[in-house]
Amino acid sequence: MLTTNPFDDDKLREECGIFGVYNSEGAAAMAALGLHALQHRGQEAAGITSFDGKEFHTHRAMGHVAGNFDREDVIRALPGSIAAGHVRYSTTGETSLRNVQPLYADLATGGFAVAHNGNISNAIHLRRELVLRGSIFQSTSDTEVIIHLVATSSQKSLLDRLIDALKQVEGAYSLICLTPEGMIACRDPLGIRPLVMGRLGETIIFASETVALDIVGADFIRSVEPGEIVVVREGAIGSHKPFYPTSPRPCIFEHVYFSRPDSIVDGSSVYSVRKAIGAELARENGIDADYVIPVPDSGTPAAIGYAEASGIPFELGIIRSHYVGRTFIQPGDGVRHLGVKLKHNANRNLVAGKRIVLIDDSIVRGTTSLKIVQMMREAGAKEVHMRIASPPTTNSCFYGVDTPEREKLLASRMNIAEMCDYIHADSLAFLTIEGLYRALGEAQRDAACPRYCDACFTGDYPTKLTDFDEHSAAGQLKLRVVR
Amino acid sequence: MLTTNPFDDDKLREECGIFGVYNSEGAAAMAALGLHALQHRGQEAAGITSFDGKEFHTHRAMGHVAGNFDREDVIRALPGSIAAGHVRYSTTGETSLRNVQPLYADLATGGFAVAHNGNISNAIHLRRELVLRGSIFQSTSDTEVIIHLVATSSQKSLLDRLIDALKQVEGAYSLICLTPEGMIACRDPLGIRPLVMGRLGETIIFASETVALDIVGADFIRSVEPGEIVVVREGAIGSHKPFYPTSPRPCIFEHVYFSRPDSIVDGSSVYSVRKAIGAELARENGIDADYVIPVPDSGTPAAIGYAEASGIPFELGIIRSHYVGRTFIQPGDGVRHLGVKLKHNANRNLVAGKRIVLIDDSIVRGTTSLKIVQMMREAGAKEVHMRIASPPTTNSCFYGVDTPEREKLLASRMNIAEMCDYIHADSLAFLTIEGLYRALGEAQRDAACPRYCDACFTGDYPTKLTDFDEHSAAGQLKLRVVR
Amino acid sequence: MLTTNPFDDDKLREECGIFGVYNSEGAAAMAALGLHALQHRGQEAAGITSFDGKEFHTHRAMGHVAGNFDREDVIRALPGSIAAGHVRYSTTGETSLRNVQPLYADLATGGFAVAHNGNISNAIHLRRELVLRGSIFQSTSDTEVIIHLVATSSQKSLLDRLIDALKQVEGAYSLICLTPEGMIACRDPLGIRPLVMGRLGETIIFASETVALDIVGADFIRSVEPGEIVVVREGAIGSHKPFYPTSPRPCIFEHVYFSRPDSIVDGSSVYSVRKAIGAELARENGIDADYVIPVPDSGTPAAIGYAEASGIPFELGIIRSHYVGRTFIQPGDGVRHLGVKLKHNANRNLVAGKRIVLIDDSIVRGTTSLKIVQMMREAGAKEVHMRIASPPTTNSCFYGVDTPEREKLLASRMNIAEMCDYIHADSLAFLTIEGLYRALGEAQRDAACPRYCDACFTGDYPTKLTDFDEHSAAGQLKLRVVR
Amino acid sequence: MLTTNPFDDDKLREECGIFGVYNSEGAAAMAALGLHALQHRGQEAAGITSFDGKEFHTHRAMGHVAGNFDREDVIRALPGSIAAGHVRYSTTGETSLRNVQPLYADLATGGFAVAHNGNISNAIHLRRELVLRGSIFQSTSDTEVIIHLVATSSQKSLLDRLIDALKQVEGAYSLICLTPEGMIACRDPLGIRPLVMGRLGETIIFASETVALDIVGADFIRSVEPGEIVVVREGAIGSHKPFYPTSPRPCIFEHVYFSRPDSIVDGSSVYSVRKAIGAELARENGIDADYVIPVPDSGTPAAIGYAEASGIPFELGIIRSHYVGRTFIQPGDGVRHLGVKLKHNANRNLVAGKRIVLIDDSIVRGTTSLKIVQMMREAGAKEVHMRIASPPTTNSCFYGVDTPEREKLLASRMNIAEMCDYIHADSLAFLTIEGLYRALGEAQRDAACPRYCDACFTGDYPTKLTDFDEHSAAGQLKLRVVR
Repeated sequence: MLTTNPFDDDKLREECGIFGVYNSEGAAAMAALGLHALQHRGQEAAGITSFDGKEFHTHRAMGHVAGNFDREDVIRALPGSIAAGHVRYSTTGETSLRNVQPLYADLATGGFAVAHNGNISNAIHLRRELVLRGSIFQSTSDTEVIIHLVATSSQKSLLDRLIDALKQVEGAYSLICLTPEGMIACRDPLGIRPLVMGRLGETIIFASETVALDIVGADFIRSVEPGEIVVVREGAIGSHKPFYPTSPRPCIFEHVYFSRPDSIVDGSSVYSVRKAIGAELARENGIDADYVIPVPDSGTPAAIGYAEASGIPFELGIIRSHYVGRTFIQPGDGVRHLGVKLKHNANRNLVAGKRIVLIDDSIVRGTTSLKIVQMMREAGAKEVHMRIASPPTTNSCFYGVDTPEREKLLASRMNIAEMCDYIHADSLAFLTIEGLYRALGEAQRDAACPRYCDACFTGDYPTKLTDFDEHSAAGQLKLRVVR
Repeated sequence: MLTTNPFDDDKLREECGIFGVYNSEGAAAMAALGLHALQHRGQEAAGITSFDGKEFHTHRAMGHVAGNFDREDVIRALPGSIAAGHVRYSTTGETSLRNVQPLYADLATGGFAVAHNGNISNAIHLRRELVLRGSIFQSTSDTEVIIHLVATSSQKSLLDRLIDALKQVEGAYSLICLTPEGMIACRDPLGIRPLVMGRLGETIIFASETVALDIVGADFIRSVEPGEIVVVREGAIGSHKPFYPTSPRPCIFEHVYFSRPDSIVDGSSVYSVRKAIGAELARENGIDADYVIPVPDSGTPAAIGYAEASGIPFELGIIRSHYVGRTFIQPGDGVRHLGVKLKHNANRNLVAGKRIVLIDDSIVRGTTSLKIVQMMREAGAKEVHMRIASPPTTNSCFYGVDTPEREKLLASRMNIAEMCDYIHADSLAFLTIEGLYRALGEAQRDAACPRYCDACFTGDYPTKLTDFDEHSAAGQLKLRVVR
Repeated sequence: MLTTNPFDDDKLREECGIFGVYNSEGAAAMAALGLHALQHRGQEAAGITSFDGKEFHTHRAMGHVAGNFDREDVIRALPGSIAAGHVRYSTTGETSLRNVQPLYADLATGGFAVAHNGNISNAIHLRRELVLRGSIFQSTSDTEVIIHLVATSSQKSLLDRLIDALKQVEGAYSLICLTPEGMIACRDPLGIRPLVMGRLGETIIFASETVALDIVGADFIRSVEPGEIVVVREGAIGSHKPFYPTSPRPCIFEHVYFSRPDSIVDGSSVYSVRKAIGAELARENGIDADYVIPVPDSGTPAAIGYAEASGIPFELGIIRSHYVGRTFIQPGDGVRHLGVKLKHNANRNLVAGKRIVLIDDSIVRGTTSLKIVQMMREAGAKEVHMRIASPPTTNSCFYGVDTPEREKLLASRMNIAEMCDYIHADSLAFLTIEGLYRALGEAQRDAACPRYCDACFTGDYPTKLTDFDEHSAAGQLKLRVVR
Repeated sequence: MLTTNPFDDDKLREECGIFGVYNSEGAAAMAALGLHALQHRGQEAAGITSFDGKEFHTHRAMGHVAGNFDREDVIRALPGSIAAGHVRYSTTGETSLRNVQPLYADLATGGFAVAHNGNISNAIHLRRELVLRGSIFQSTSDTEVIIHLVATSSQKSLLDRLIDALKQVEGAYSLICLTPEGMIACRDPLGIRPLVMGRLGETIIFASETVALDIVGADFIRSVEPGEIVVVREGAIGSHKPFYPTSPRPCIFEHVYFSRPDSIVDGSSVYSVRKAIGAELARENGIDADYVIPVPDSGTPAAIGYAEASGIPFELGIIRSHYVGRTFIQPGDGVRHLGVKLKHNANRNLVAGKRIVLIDDSIVRGTTSLKIVQMMREAGAKEVHMRIASPPTTNSCFYGVDTPEREKLLASRMNIAEMCDYIHADSLAFLTIEGLYRALGEAQRDAACPRYCDACFTGDYPTKLTDFDEHSAAGQLKLRVVR
């Protein structure tokens, strides 16, 4: 009997990270480093495309960046001073290699490669129309729709074709494109997914997060703005804003969980925001206890903030294994909660007889929380109080985050008391949506025009959801892979 | 140009972890779990031998336990209710697979498999004698010496042969042996390396650390005692003490770094000891600063202890990547300190303009400390004070820990002021050996008969070092692998 | 220093074999067998596409059919009662996997898979036009041009779209197509490449050669006719002839070398034709000698025919290794003609002191013939007379056969006397083109309208060569692979 | 359902080929070539050991020589001017890699590597005694017994130890040994397995067959004599004959099937002997027929001899595939005799309506013969007469040939008429043992002291069979592999 680690399964997953390098010797080597720093945004596949002035070169691989893109033969096969890369969460299996980005096509304007973070919410609709006109798709990726729209556009220059294409597209996209002339980076009008720009000497860099600038030693310049198309060619940087202006709605969950704590997202330090979240949580939901214990590692900054605000000592009551093991063979019937134990172990000597406050960043299905609470009780904890550093997650994301269908989200089926019962905690509390906005420095959430996309907490989606509306159930939204 | 992560290279490495299961359905599956929990004691190879009542079955693999021993085909090929396993730090390469344990031999008394944690300090001497008498060695492992001594012993029973063999051996050994009759576990007379015994229903378990009992849900019974041979057969547990009695000297570094913080070693919680070490360190070497920052993850418990004792806030100023990347291709000349950045990143927004105390567990070569300090300075730290949670490491270990030769140990070449200069810190301080004994609950170190083996800090080796004395230089101690 | 077997390099190579199964349980398993029997037509990659009534499934692999398509997991992943397969000679390397056939596309009419034997001589021209209209190519294969012509055709039914596409195409093609409705097999108007139809109970089979019918136990029905499109659906077989009628010109080299001796090609037994060729050769170019010796295995049937006609005994003077070894490391300078010796060895005891007639099927570059003659002399042969079972090969093929550029063909640079000198033979003679037609049962070659495509011997190409004319040199004809 | 090619399963298999090089730059590269030429003697594993003046280097691999020992990295890792190699038939599976030769051990006299062709018929007996004395075996190979006897010998020099060891051994052995001083080659007193010596400039070569001299361009000097130990060191060749003199009994089956036709075995051309066998067969068992057809390729020389002697034309009625495919998935129920068809196909156009004489070298289980006859009948042959180029195979071999147990040998269960019925032939005849001796140039077989070991035909074994006698059934002779 197989047992699978439920921890990883009970987080929302960012689906992609992207990275681009313009004008650097060894651009692919630099892209590999940048993608390594973005690995938390997509662990299951990676790809890099480079351009050497004459030809495009692509390598794609299932698995991590390290192990695939740290090999000299691989990097040597990606020559040139321009490169774009992509990490991706995706289903495993050989055939899906054709979905691994960057995607590439020979267009009438020359070669064209695209790395995409986000999700096009009318991709199936557009794909159907394109096939009727004779386009042949290589992948099941929504990103390929953009490429075919560019290929069949009646505009002449590549930039005009790209603008023509993007105007037909709805949803979330941060893109890094490679062309024989240079690099194009852009962000959808709402700026749902992040994208930043940096500089290292004469080299221009685009990345999903600032940590990818740090690893290569580049300076952070600014975020690419929502609705902006940045064109870098012949050493010059041009900015275009061809879309109708609208209020940005960047993803609020980047601050809660997706981005690394050492990143600066839209001007805020993620670590500081998470500590502030912890402090808000302590203020909103204080409790008398012996220790504040983070569920490692995503709950740690909020736990430090909670401990400081509450005066309760911060302690490591759960030790996380550094060694990944998702699935082991169950030995007989004796071993319980194996999935949790493969990754975490109670610091039994510490927690025995104590009242503890557990801090986690969110609850998705609730399966992990249940097992963590049980593990603490079996280690002898007297009381287990769970505090969650975000509001209840009640809605699916259609903008590039892998969410379970709505009915699998614990908070869409139960109220807080029921959830507390379900996970067997002595008490359970979530941060309020207002508390979350306060931690982000806002006085309050403006319901008419919220500062962030917070649809996963509120159901307030900032775009049309054409494919979802046409197909009515999320389950039918996935294109079947037939090859 | 390749760049290698210096972090991992600047720690002492435990060379092995061992685990044995007696009388459990699916013994090999349980051994796989136990070894996964001991993975930090040896990351480069693993092996399991099982006995099904008729035949012995062994699988060995380079790499981690997960990925090799979580496969159904592998576990199915290891049937039986008795199993022993081993994780090992070793040099890579296909040929060294024959050094991966458990080692196995068909003796006149039947099959015999051994998993060994430790190092025999007269192995080369004994090997030479055995070859002269016609013994043929399969491996370059010191452990094989024990097997040949057993094979050629003039004693009759396997137990008597084993005692005969161990009496000729000097150094450190915790052993788990499999025979057609059952399981034998033993520890050298000084008890240098740890070994514990647990129980899960009718199943008896031996393991290097208690965390391996936790993962399978077993209860901790007691440590195997120094000089004790425990024989488990036909459901009965026998204890033998055939060696001349002597004062135990368990390894003190298990508490400083090797063991997991959630283990109980020789009766003490490792986490609590490390917090006590941090508190002693604050008392011995206080400093005025804004933040206490751990070098993750090994410095974290001591940093929490230091912060509590000093009243300076504990903050995450260094973020550790969850994704291992040892070696990436250097992109041009622009990227500095790549090795450090593959694993750690400064939380730049936090440390900028601040006075920080960095807490690390030890300094070996000093290369990492140097780079960490520089990384903090480049992130804008105003002052960087380094505090080390153990005394200066001045001597090599010959008992199963991979130490650089003496002259590569920073503390063997420099005094503390020189080391402080070398790593560019504003101040540097180490815990004293007395402080370390205090943290372990001793009033003081008894120089005539210390409670622990602390040779790496003091040069006071508890055994003869025959091979070292005969060969005079550590460099010549290694047997060359000729196949 | 590497040394490469020159034998294989000195043959023309058929570039493909194709096989289709309609209405058989386990269609993919049957296709695997058929492709195994056609392996001599393409050794470097293979692919099978099946259709299970709902979805198409494809597996492609570099290497032989055996080793890839004899695995249960592979065949199980190719369910359905309809399947088409392809073996291919192609350059090695991972990226070229996207060139391995069958090619597949989702069209507006549904899924569409094609396996193609032959070569489109205006593929580059058509590709350029399609890209301008927005088509995106996945491969560098000429076959993909056909798919895009079908996808963008303004016709409605798939059959009409296919006819529309094929009317724009020039060159050689035998095709087997899979659609949701059934199977379509067709042959270009000249019938350059072969294609036969067979039956096994209710199952209809198409294959490049009859040996592929033999291996599955099917009965040979008839050849697909030049210019015929055979449609099999709902159990019925329809025949369409949409092209302007023209005199067929099937490839004459199939009889000389490509097809297996146990195949029936266009109504003739290949083995009998080759024996007749040997007999014609003896009549045209008799010589007094001790033994007739075939260059194995392709020269063997002609050698038997030559021996019978001449009365000189047939003997095995060259022994061929059953074990393929293309490239070994040269040990020092001592070993000569290594390439030849990896595959052939002189039967030294037999040929020493004898006058021998060597029979080979053709001479391409001449490098092998030279080494074979030398090997015979070093083994002690007194006289070595070379007889070639076809006319001098003077021209490149543009119809799906891998030929060196013209200037590398020995016969394009030298007359027969010069060639004899070059290979150091005592005499050299080729079959005349008239002799070849006689062996095929024709009274003579009709120069105005030859019965076969014999362009490799005569330069008389039966179609336009658009790409060649536009690019003027064969070397520029190859599309560069950019991914 | 899997179907396995019965052809390969119905031959006796030589278990080994050996090759040694003394004093050649790139000795391992030369050994690789030699082993490639001996590949027919063992297809399932290969190994080479070299000595570079200081250290021994070994590489072993499952599979063919080509693909493993034609790689530059492998050869570069085998430096030195002395090398010995081995090809082996063995059961597959990773664990058996430790049985792949050359075997190596560090002895008191230094390194010692052995490659062995043959089989020790008292290996189990000796092994049991050695284990009792404390020897630990690494493999289940009989060859390791020799190494342990050498290791534990009380003699002083390696040569004396080797002689001491061999005097305790019974059975068949041709050995090539590597020591720090040079190379030792020897053959058991009966000379059951072949071994020849050659020279290429200053390089001395030993090989199982002369074809391995041909491939490297070496001259054949002479056979190593039965009971001779040849020592090559410091450029000098010494010969020792330490055994009690006895009449040689080389294996007669080398001439019938094992050796390649282009080899010279014990002074005779194998090709000529096989033609003479065919002629004897025609004389002893003539029949009126249209064609003589070889079962390719082993029956071909005898078929040529039969055709010449009988005047019946030699024709290729069976075409053998060049592409190995042992096991394909059976598609439904329709395809019959798949195993045969993967390798052979009837030349249906030739044999239809004809009376044919099929020539094969031997019948082991008879399964293949049955299917070949059926294939000929289904292709329309009017009469099928089977003629076998050796006497009935009635007894197992214990000297290094893989034979089925006696009861599986068709000729041990049936008389010739029953066998004819079993294979559905119109007639069946075998060569007599006297005819076989005549073909080998003997006037007759001397029953008191036969010139050859012909035990497989006569049951007259030239040595004691200690292991067989002690264990009474061949089935129990195999050592179980326990790791």
